[in-house]
Amino acid sequence: MNTYLDCIPCFFKQALESSRMAGADKEMQKKMLDEIAAILPSISLKLSPPEMGRTIYKLTNKLTGVNDPYLKIKEKSNKLALGVYDRLKERVGNSEDRLLMAVELAIAGNIIDYGVKNSLNVELELEKILVQESKVIKEEKRRLFDYPKFKKDLLKSKSILYLGDNAGEILFDRILIEEIKRIDSNKSIIFAVKEGPIINDALMKDALDCGIDHVADIISSGSDGPGTILSICSEKFLSIYRDVDMVISKGQGNFEALSDAKRDIFFLFIAKCPVIAQDVGARIGDVILIYHQGQEDAKKRSS
Amino acid sequence: MNTYLDCIPCFFKQALESSRMAGADKEMQKKMLDEIAAILPSISLKLSPPEMGRTIYKLTNKLTGVNDPYLKIKEKSNKLALGVYDRLKERVGNSEDRLLMAVELAIAGNIIDYGVKNSLNVELELEKILVQESKVIKEEKRRLFDYPKFKKDLLKSKSILYLGDNAGEILFDRILIEEIKRIDSNKSIIFAVKEGPIINDALMKDALDCGIDHVADIISSGSDGPGTILSICSEKFLSIYRDVDMVISKGQGNFEALSDAKRDIFFLFIAKCPVIAQDVGARIGDVILIYHQGQEDAKKRSS
Repeated sequence: MNTYLDCIPCFFKQALESSRMAGADKEMQKKMLDEIAAILPSISLKLSPPEMGRTIYKLTNKLTGVNDPYLKIKEKSNKLALGVYDRLKERVGNSEDRLLMAVELAIAGNIIDYGVKNSLNVELELEKILVQESKVIKEEKRRLFDYPKFKKDLLKSKSILYLGDNAGEILFDRILIEEIKRIDSNKSIIFAVKEGPIINDALMKDALDCGIDHVADIISSGSDGPGTILSICSEKFLSIYRDVDMVISKGQGNFEALSDAKRDIFFLFIAKCPVIAQDVGARIGDVILIYHQGQEDAKKRSS
Repeated sequence: MNTYLDCIPCFFKQALESSRMAGADKEMQKKMLDEIAAILPSISLKLSPPEMGRTIYKLTNKLTGVNDPYLKIKEKSNKLALGVYDRLKERVGNSEDRLLMAVELAIAGNIIDYGVKNSLNVELELEKILVQESKVIKEEKRRLFDYPKFKKDLLKSKSILYLGDNAGEILFDRILIEEIKRIDSNKSIIFAVKEGPIINDALMKDALDCGIDHVADIISSGSDGPGTILSICSEKFLSIYRDVDMVISKGQGNFEALSDAKRDIFFLFIAKCPVIAQDVGARIGDVILIYHQGQEDAKKRSS
């Protein structure tokens, strides 16, 4: 998707928050805002929000000299998520529809996102997910939740590319991948992480810390933006992306980067900002499972 | 108060919203944001938020050629507020402490603020105020609510300057002024409005439409910013401001402009943004009645 004008105030907010996270003093924080202001007129709104976000976060890192301001937060999120692994597995084990529960939990885990809320209380959010009764997601939050199509495609897909989003959240993805493997252990699952530090997005180390390597092959997408920006992805990744039977994409950032994709993608995320909510026709807080039909894939099927 | 860095993203948001209110197309809206970006580095954070806000809203009006984008909204707010006048009076009449109820209603009316929320549903907000039981304000929202001091000072003050805030809201101020006059009809009450259009702030016409002239003398402060910015106020206003026994100031904007004032002021408002809430030590949504002790007034009393 293109960047909305409403994203611009939010970019300034994100710049401020990330420069604080990098330990910048007030003078440096103001300088950061001035730098964003200086490049604003030259920025094209045809770029996607993650492309804009990448520029902004890179600028923070350059100005503050801190390469990975969210490192400690990522480590903490992984640790906290690992701490509830057994309870999540138990929840899935006790469910009538184990796959559905795993999908719900994977989306619920998307709440661990520092791009939107910088003062996130991960413990509290995890507890909220865990204390909820039988179902994680209330019906009124499922305005866009195409689970039947997701399940149908999943069952027939032999190769799956799973685009990870944030540290901590990826432990929830592991639970879903374990359920997919339980259905058919021969499915090939490739889990993609970001190439370099960007907000609290998961990197290779986070995926290893959360044990994704036990259930999937991990690769870097090559993108170091807060979303899978295809124009900067590696050839290796792009070849996998094009060839797999199914792509499961986690998080708002990946949706923003890939919502106009030419191939079919299933987007799983929580709508966290008014712009995205309006764009997809949902409300903030809604759990989203959208089937995106890519034009090229549609052509293939019809030819 | 000085402008916080956190106000800057909000200025961009306000610029976007006000340019939309003025009917600007997307290109013009982007131009508006670029213009704000261009002046950002030169803006001093020692200015108060209303001083910054004034610059921004003036720029919108200049770029769009629309002098009073909120005119219709102001007219509608006045009309809706007048429509509930009888119900408000009845509420006050049925109260054990009539003055307290009138104070509570006056603060509740401060919810009619387009600077913070552009998509305000005034009907809904008024209904919320009216359907609430005996008391408008729940105890947990009264963290800063110095009614005893307010009442004590009010009873002994012969001359009162009342700084109005928004159109519609001023009808609620009229109710409070009527209660003050009921206590002592000899009290001199001067009601100040803004000099020129700024967001949905009340002007002379709004005060007349809401019948403030029946209960107080109306003057313009001379400020056309979203707060009573003393440096641009008229001599006539400043002389009254300095000489009256008591100043009652409504709204966040007036608080932002006058929080460091040298004279005593009672600030009545709803905390509507995280920056203000944190600054005063309250939470968003809290109803605030703060006694501000000015250094010069303190000196006068001790000498």
